[in-house]
Amino acid sequence: MDFKQNTSNQPLKIVSLGGFGRVTSNMFVYEYGPDILLVDCGMGFPTQDMLGVDLLIPDINYLKTKAGKIRGLVLTHGHEDHVGALAYILPQIKNVPVYASKLTAALVMDKLAEYENMPQKVNVLPTGQPLKLGEFTVESVHVSHSIPDATNLIIKTPVGTIYHGSDYKFDFTPVDGILPDVVRIAAAGAEGVQLLLSDCLGSERNGHTPSERTLEEMFDREISHCQGKVIVTTMSSNISRWQQAVDTAVRHGRRVAILGRSIDRNLSVSAKLGYFKIPKGAMLDAKQIRKLPPKNVCLLAAGSQGQAGSAMERLATGEHRDAQISVGDKVIFSSDYIPGTEGTTQSLIDALSKAGATVIYSNITDNLHVSGHGSKQDHLLMAALTRPKYLLPIGGTWRHMVQYAKVLGEMGYASDKILLPEQNQSIEVYPDRVKLGPVVEVRNVMVDGLGVGDVGNVVLRDRQLLAGEGIVVAVVEIDQSNPGQINKIDLISRGFVYAKEHSQLLIEAGNMVKQTVAKRKGRIDSEKFMRDMVADILERYFFEKTHRRPMILPVIAEV
Amino acid sequence: MDFKQNTSNQPLKIVSLGGFGRVTSNMFVYEYGPDILLVDCGMGFPTQDMLGVDLLIPDINYLKTKAGKIRGLVLTHGHEDHVGALAYILPQIKNVPVYASKLTAALVMDKLAEYENMPQKVNVLPTGQPLKLGEFTVESVHVSHSIPDATNLIIKTPVGTIYHGSDYKFDFTPVDGILPDVVRIAAAGAEGVQLLLSDCLGSERNGHTPSERTLEEMFDREISHCQGKVIVTTMSSNISRWQQAVDTAVRHGRRVAILGRSIDRNLSVSAKLGYFKIPKGAMLDAKQIRKLPPKNVCLLAAGSQGQAGSAMERLATGEHRDAQISVGDKVIFSSDYIPGTEGTTQSLIDALSKAGATVIYSNITDNLHVSGHGSKQDHLLMAALTRPKYLLPIGGTWRHMVQYAKVLGEMGYASDKILLPEQNQSIEVYPDRVKLGPVVEVRNVMVDGLGVGDVGNVVLRDRQLLAGEGIVVAVVEIDQSNPGQINKIDLISRGFVYAKEHSQLLIEAGNMVKQTVAKRKGRIDSEKFMRDMVADILERYFFEKTHRRPMILPVIAEV
Repeated sequence: MDFKQNTSNQPLKIVSLGGFGRVTSNMFVYEYGPDILLVDCGMGFPTQDMLGVDLLIPDINYLKTKAGKIRGLVLTHGHEDHVGALAYILPQIKNVPVYASKLTAALVMDKLAEYENMPQKVNVLPTGQPLKLGEFTVESVHVSHSIPDATNLIIKTPVGTIYHGSDYKFDFTPVDGILPDVVRIAAAGAEGVQLLLSDCLGSERNGHTPSERTLEEMFDREISHCQGKVIVTTMSSNISRWQQAVDTAVRHGRRVAILGRSIDRNLSVSAKLGYFKIPKGAMLDAKQIRKLPPKNVCLLAAGSQGQAGSAMERLATGEHRDAQISVGDKVIFSSDYIPGTEGTTQSLIDALSKAGATVIYSNITDNLHVSGHGSKQDHLLMAALTRPKYLLPIGGTWRHMVQYAKVLGEMGYASDKILLPEQNQSIEVYPDRVKLGPVVEVRNVMVDGLGVGDVGNVVLRDRQLLAGEGIVVAVVEIDQSNPGQINKIDLISRGFVYAKEHSQLLIEAGNMVKQTVAKRKGRIDSEKFMRDMVADILERYFFEKTHRRPMILPVIAEV
Repeated sequence: MDFKQNTSNQPLKIVSLGGFGRVTSNMFVYEYGPDILLVDCGMGFPTQDMLGVDLLIPDINYLKTKAGKIRGLVLTHGHEDHVGALAYILPQIKNVPVYASKLTAALVMDKLAEYENMPQKVNVLPTGQPLKLGEFTVESVHVSHSIPDATNLIIKTPVGTIYHGSDYKFDFTPVDGILPDVVRIAAAGAEGVQLLLSDCLGSERNGHTPSERTLEEMFDREISHCQGKVIVTTMSSNISRWQQAVDTAVRHGRRVAILGRSIDRNLSVSAKLGYFKIPKGAMLDAKQIRKLPPKNVCLLAAGSQGQAGSAMERLATGEHRDAQISVGDKVIFSSDYIPGTEGTTQSLIDALSKAGATVIYSNITDNLHVSGHGSKQDHLLMAALTRPKYLLPIGGTWRHMVQYAKVLGEMGYASDKILLPEQNQSIEVYPDRVKLGPVVEVRNVMVDGLGVGDVGNVVLRDRQLLAGEGIVVAVVEIDQSNPGQINKIDLISRGFVYAKEHSQLLIEAGNMVKQTVAKRKGRIDSEKFMRDMVADILERYFFEKTHRRPMILPVIAEV
């Protein structure tokens, strides 16, 4: 403990590389002296204005000069927003050992097998077995979530214990029978917790989040009364939900086929490790669906938000190779709307209804879905068990943080004990206090195709402009001997007006440019001047005629 | 009645120019013999894939050859999705008399005053006064909705009576004190209704839609406990909601300022006609907001969905000229999420929370909003009053139509009495039956700037491509004497990669094109061949290097 004494004024620093106040892109840095511990490495989803962007990843710029300090990366569970950025980030932090629960490790290895230069293994960190990583001692604790084998972390540090309460709820009647380990959590509280980081995404909901088991009755009711095929859709990673659907379907004389590679992979990996139990003879090859009577078939279909190309979308449009929707079929959406995707989900429901299916979804039926995240009562229980001195809500946006602070305030926490950091602020943990620290540079790192970080604000602004109004390329031919005159001008448009029907508009615009330039009588003395002038004339002309502002790209060809 | 006898085999034809199975773009054609009656003329909202499109309007192509037959256009109420296309469509159906209720007429005239060549007046059609328009006799009936002075229409025709049940609910304790005229509706039922067109948007909800008055308690509770400014936001046209907010604010010692031109116009027009009652001394000029103590101020702010440039957005970002959010202020979202805008609404709530306001919204508080559309019980009541032989759900998408058919089926209607037309199908009404008729061409007419209908699928496809991947313009200089060789090639990109940092990619791509063409040794004999070849080489090169597919636009300059 010499080291601790020597550095007693030195804080533990916590940085969120995906930014605080965010639901996805989870990745946290715990830094103390010469040691860094990383927790999670998740992807994020682009907002609507990030056109063409495939996904977001945490910004590891902060780690650039500190690679040698990283003692390990611990993953809390297997959801994409906690592990989905590994393929992009692991190559940049080579040789860092990765730890996770058994199922999480298997899911990650299965995924990383698609990429080159990935680590040979993810180490299994069993619960209850403390792991020393430099100055940190990390112990994982089992919690309930919407994927099996999810964990929180008890992190012992020289400045006190941090409880890393990544996504959790308290489900005391779980489908897999494994209780959240409230005894171990309470023991951590008894030993003393300096700071609780707590999932706050469900803080808008009163009471506690219901058990996954409460859906059993719904599945039973909906499946038992159906004479046609039953199609169930939810998040692909929701193993427990699939387990309930399969068990109920089998009980009612149905066999089960999987439509969607993401479900297939999740269930295969889970089944191998015993986290998903397949009743004997239950599974049906998709090619066999048409050979069984509809009342003996249940389909597990990916794409509950109507994602383009997903099994659900192809079923709705009648383009699925192995199955089609018929009158009498029933589709169960065992999922909530995801903000931003309500439009596509509802179009999907319309299309399925039109194809003749009875569609069961949250607007018309209750108890179709339970969240994997705790509600207010769960947050209170977590705080009561861990008895932390300070609280830091994570995994939610500002409104969730505010609601979390409100309910924990009612428990008796003063507002200066509840930290509400800015997106890029660091947290400093001292033995006697926790406070907001200095700002760290954390950007949005956008992935588009193979490019990581090469799409920035300039490219996005251009895409937004192109998306809204299209582009007009003006090819201007000038004579080397007389560069202030235009010999010829051709306008080519894309995404602006339908060129075949509106060629006259483009021809007139070209003439207008030629005439205006001619009036200048050759006093245009540089290509740049010519380009700017052409762009200016066209911008004004098109706005006057169409009230649109396409991007104008003048190209000067000297002859 | 000679005419009726002569044409007894001739049906009344009903066509939806916005398409059946749609919520917005309401416009209906009733056609019998030489007469056409039009009902409503509303705008629609572009879907997410209609990039850059401002709004949709009904397709009046069907009326092109029938202009002389149109006897009148009757508007049912003043919402944009029922009157918002008038400015685009009236110039094309000149001299057609327009009829509406008093408030609807005033709102429309106020709006049309912005445009040129609009009709001098909209005629007021009082309820209970039948109007003869050719073979049709139209009588308007007062119903409840989320805007005052809303009506349904009783349309007598030679083949029987049609009840046009545009947007309605049954609010028997309305804020404006005017009851829905169930007595007149029942009398129509007693006389015999052949077909009921019924709003079905609320058919996913059980029970009846609560009265607007149920919100009084909420306003009172939220406003009385606030020490800072109160900001209320809802749909601009929801006059009754504003009335309740204003009355409650005044009762608690506040004065009221309006932030947003749309609210201002709606309330001015309504106040002039007595549909909105301003308590004496209640109104406050926006410039005076900062001069009063916060606890004496209530703001009515437009932009409940976080629309760009709206008062709510400017308040949230701290960019409003006349007011800012301070700690202690309270923002009441008296509105539901609109599908497709949840993302922006939630970002707005986050930003307001961050600025220090207490935000009251539907996820955390009940009874903040009631719908203007009836629920299942309202639909049953309407059918019980009108006792129609046939039913046709309107104003909802397919899933709403299915739910409507389900609950009316429970009332005893056989499924062949409930018409579920395809989007572009017509309806044929005979004295003894109603049936689905032939398909009519009804397209999406998109408005972008001044252009109406000039944005079609080609333009949209280009915009989608440009939005997702950007564009690369390849300027290829060739020699007239040797057109199969490239002298010089310049690549200019927009929205593809950040050119300053990735100029090498573009230079290498250009070199690759030059080399590949050179190997052909001049065997390229046309500009088109050259263009196709350049595009092909670049497409493959960029995909290999970036996994993106920007639009490639080769431009050949002959020197």
